[in-house]
Amino acid sequence: MDKLIQRIQTAAGELPAECVIKNGLVLDSYNLEFIQADVAIVGGVIAGIGKFEGKHVIDARGKYVVPSLIDAHVHIESAMVPPSEFAKAVLPCGVTTIITDPHEIANVSGTEGISYMLQDSENVPMDIYFMLPSSVPSTPFENSGAILSAEDLKPFYDHNRVLGLAEVMDYPSVANTSPSMMHKLHDAQNRKIDGHAAGLDTRALNVYKTAGIGTDHECITAEEALERIKRGMYVFIREGSVAKNLKQLLPAVTERNARRFMFCTDDKHIDDLITEGSVDHNVRLAIQEGLDPLVAIQMASLNVAECFGLKTKGAIAPGLDADFLLLDDVESFSVAKVYRAGELVAEKGKTKRIAKVTPSKRITNSVHLPTLQKEHLHLPVTDKEANVIKLIPNQIVTKAKKLIVDRNANHGFVSSAEKDLMKLAVIERHHRTGNIGLGIVEGFQFPDGAIATTVGHDSHNLIMTGTNDEDMMKAAEAIQEMQGGLAVVRNQEVIAKLPLPIAGLLSTNDYPSVVRELEEIDLALQEIGAPRDFNPFLTLSFLSLPVIPELKLTDMGLFNVQEFRHISINE
Amino acid sequence: MDKLIQRIQTAAGELPAECVIKNGLVLDSYNLEFIQADVAIVGGVIAGIGKFEGKHVIDARGKYVVPSLIDAHVHIESAMVPPSEFAKAVLPCGVTTIITDPHEIANVSGTEGISYMLQDSENVPMDIYFMLPSSVPSTPFENSGAILSAEDLKPFYDHNRVLGLAEVMDYPSVANTSPSMMHKLHDAQNRKIDGHAAGLDTRALNVYKTAGIGTDHECITAEEALERIKRGMYVFIREGSVAKNLKQLLPAVTERNARRFMFCTDDKHIDDLITEGSVDHNVRLAIQEGLDPLVAIQMASLNVAECFGLKTKGAIAPGLDADFLLLDDVESFSVAKVYRAGELVAEKGKTKRIAKVTPSKRITNSVHLPTLQKEHLHLPVTDKEANVIKLIPNQIVTKAKKLIVDRNANHGFVSSAEKDLMKLAVIERHHRTGNIGLGIVEGFQFPDGAIATTVGHDSHNLIMTGTNDEDMMKAAEAIQEMQGGLAVVRNQEVIAKLPLPIAGLLSTNDYPSVVRELEEIDLALQEIGAPRDFNPFLTLSFLSLPVIPELKLTDMGLFNVQEFRHISINE
Repeated sequence: MDKLIQRIQTAAGELPAECVIKNGLVLDSYNLEFIQADVAIVGGVIAGIGKFEGKHVIDARGKYVVPSLIDAHVHIESAMVPPSEFAKAVLPCGVTTIITDPHEIANVSGTEGISYMLQDSENVPMDIYFMLPSSVPSTPFENSGAILSAEDLKPFYDHNRVLGLAEVMDYPSVANTSPSMMHKLHDAQNRKIDGHAAGLDTRALNVYKTAGIGTDHECITAEEALERIKRGMYVFIREGSVAKNLKQLLPAVTERNARRFMFCTDDKHIDDLITEGSVDHNVRLAIQEGLDPLVAIQMASLNVAECFGLKTKGAIAPGLDADFLLLDDVESFSVAKVYRAGELVAEKGKTKRIAKVTPSKRITNSVHLPTLQKEHLHLPVTDKEANVIKLIPNQIVTKAKKLIVDRNANHGFVSSAEKDLMKLAVIERHHRTGNIGLGIVEGFQFPDGAIATTVGHDSHNLIMTGTNDEDMMKAAEAIQEMQGGLAVVRNQEVIAKLPLPIAGLLSTNDYPSVVRELEEIDLALQEIGAPRDFNPFLTLSFLSLPVIPELKLTDMGLFNVQEFRHISINE
Repeated sequence: MDKLIQRIQTAAGELPAECVIKNGLVLDSYNLEFIQADVAIVGGVIAGIGKFEGKHVIDARGKYVVPSLIDAHVHIESAMVPPSEFAKAVLPCGVTTIITDPHEIANVSGTEGISYMLQDSENVPMDIYFMLPSSVPSTPFENSGAILSAEDLKPFYDHNRVLGLAEVMDYPSVANTSPSMMHKLHDAQNRKIDGHAAGLDTRALNVYKTAGIGTDHECITAEEALERIKRGMYVFIREGSVAKNLKQLLPAVTERNARRFMFCTDDKHIDDLITEGSVDHNVRLAIQEGLDPLVAIQMASLNVAECFGLKTKGAIAPGLDADFLLLDDVESFSVAKVYRAGELVAEKGKTKRIAKVTPSKRITNSVHLPTLQKEHLHLPVTDKEANVIKLIPNQIVTKAKKLIVDRNANHGFVSSAEKDLMKLAVIERHHRTGNIGLGIVEGFQFPDGAIATTVGHDSHNLIMTGTNDEDMMKAAEAIQEMQGGLAVVRNQEVIAKLPLPIAGLLSTNDYPSVVRELEEIDLALQEIGAPRDFNPFLTLSFLSLPVIPELKLTDMGLFNVQEFRHISINE
């Protein structure tokens, strides 16, 4: 109440503003034009647009004052750092609000993981809103660290930063009206529900939309985008580390439908966030592709605020939070300073220290691997054709392939360079079930060595691949020692590692250290002769995701996604 | 939950739709184009857009299928009928959702009046949402039937059809941060708050907007509209019985800012609703003025839904309520059939019978006038100049005028035709205070007779004017007998009357009867020689509203609006 009164008195000119932005060109996000005006701020909120005096002046001479950006959908875990560290990395990009889905950590640590993410983001100078993971685990065909029911999710809706239900990925459960999915959708009917409508046809889109699912960030063509827009979905145009959809989707955006579009990163690695940016990159790219810069900014701010009902976000207007950027230039979207709730939070690419929350022991002690023996990795193949996963560089889909493999070769199957076959293993790491799924993957092209990681979508079991069992065993051992992370092994020697002890997904180091560790991993990959045209760890981490076609491997074995069932190696 | 499942199964093609719209051109409100598609409906909700079969088919061949309309702001009481009867009148216009402010009845009957309006609108085949009256009474300078505090309003927010706080009219209370206004605004911060920013300058707009007031329907110029849009307000373009702003405001609407505009009627009489229409008239007029018809329809549907957070309204899309119209023609916006929740609710201008709620005795026994004696109406004027209210035809503002009036004339002051002065009286009718305010009004031009009504904004005391005290006394007597309404008297004979026994504001008759009664009133006005270029009752009903400049009369006497204080007749 006091803040409301103070704001009114400032607007009325009875109190000086705490702070006034002067001399800048201010974006009017509603008429979409720049105006010359002062902006008065009090209590972190904009009190007025016009002529004002204040105790503190932000001189925006020669600058453009625009609302700060909102990432409509991001998995923080993909950056391998906790929310507090993620904020440090993306605030300099001009992003002061994100809507995150803690789906990865929820698959490992369940509700405790969600609570940790909420706590660690509580006192960060960034508004981090949450959508609740809807599909943990993604399928019953794997063992994740947790199973989240509607009852598990419901208490979180009372949290003021929880907006709704996150990307509903399990189309069959929706279409088949599975009781648990119906329960989750029912509880979220008056909230926001994000979709994940990869490749869905118009019938499936009807199913999703009539179920209350209102957004999609998985469009890859303009036609797909328009089909979704037509049915009242909002479309998030994604530019992540892997999935890059902007150039394909932008032709769908017109002045008449632009309000239904916004931007997201979804999954973006810490190094890409540092070098390329967050959704500021989407804005720049859209402008380069010919979109009106003001529409691009509106898509990255006002449209997201409207979509998620964030009524104090998205524009520079009285009553809204004073979240804004000073730009040197609009066309190049070069961010000079970043303000959140009227406070300078990043300048010249740097932000200040942000306090972290220490995760509980249960979260930092999440890797429970069996002591591997050589026979654990034995993969019996017959003379018949074997099912082989063929990876596609820079895609998360794979091809299912059938090949006669040489059962007499060194490791139970041929791994010659010309055939380019390597062993793939997924080892359950949450509940000590001892489950080990084994398979064969084509396309990694390693001359020698093994790589392993606990980042393995979505259940985040240990996933590893190698040219020989000894290196794979060594890699698993290194991962167990670190309580999760990434490891590169050659000749039974760990030549690089990146510890991710928080749920086996997040580092406890600051983000520049993580970037350095990733560089070391990259050097090690070069050393073992891994190909340079795609990211082997990233590719590896999706080979266990049983909702993406065609052939995947979980801790329960090979999984044919089309048929939605496990298959044996020689079936 | 069952409905959700049924909808999904229909979308998935596993169940036939209950109903399918076929062969029509369907408006895609998001891309703003017509598409050829079937629309499947189940449980009153749209299940899908595409190819469908159903038990029942709505053949839309040769028709355009568009979302039904939403009136963003309307006082039902201005139509002199209860919500159930109002629905019958406006459903044929294609309006199936309204956002109403029961401000008038609240001024008479307080929370009981609001409850009655909620009850009477509960089972109507129309979605009637409420905003809670923020300014009852409008000022402390009059006696209304009720005083509504923040505490009185708060319980109503639990009602699922109450969206927020209605038009905040009392700018001084906001700017001066009066405790009671701050309390009301505070309680509504996370809800919707409508504004009433008539004539407010940019400083005042900052005050309103930073206080959380998000809309305005009082703009009269395009410049005013743009100032409001710029600050993040939504602008409602009004076409009522008196205030008609569309032609002035439409030039402010561009493709870039159209999403911030919508339509409302605010105050529209039953006869105008029947002859001209509701917001369908705004749509037609906007199209005639050159606005893209699809943008006009979007403004009257999707934009309102977005503004008020009505997530199942505003378009034809899966998951949204099946509220739609069949149009014969788009340019002329000719409504053939009206559907709400999949049910035909109006056709060829007619709707079906709708059940009413019987109001309580307290609401139908609201007129408590003193037994008038001639001395009650005695107005002592001196030789000095008297303060005279000069009416302006078809405006609710008045001019304050000073005149020497002849104190020796028949009725205490001259009322000759050339001077065109008549006596004006406001008599408190709620609490038997015996308060009588007296004044002089110029401009009614009656040769003879008197008119009286209990529709007197905003306190709805009895207001009457006449050329002689006897006719005025007779008129008051007729009003008391009817428990409110309108009366026309000549030679001490009641020559026409319209009973409004519900709070002295609403009829218990059906709307065609009210239209006929209004016609009789109009004939009587002709009989007594009232001018034809403005509506005398309407003009009269605003002469008691002490928030509209310049000079008004309440039950407590003459009120100078500029100075915000009562004045005496000869001051």
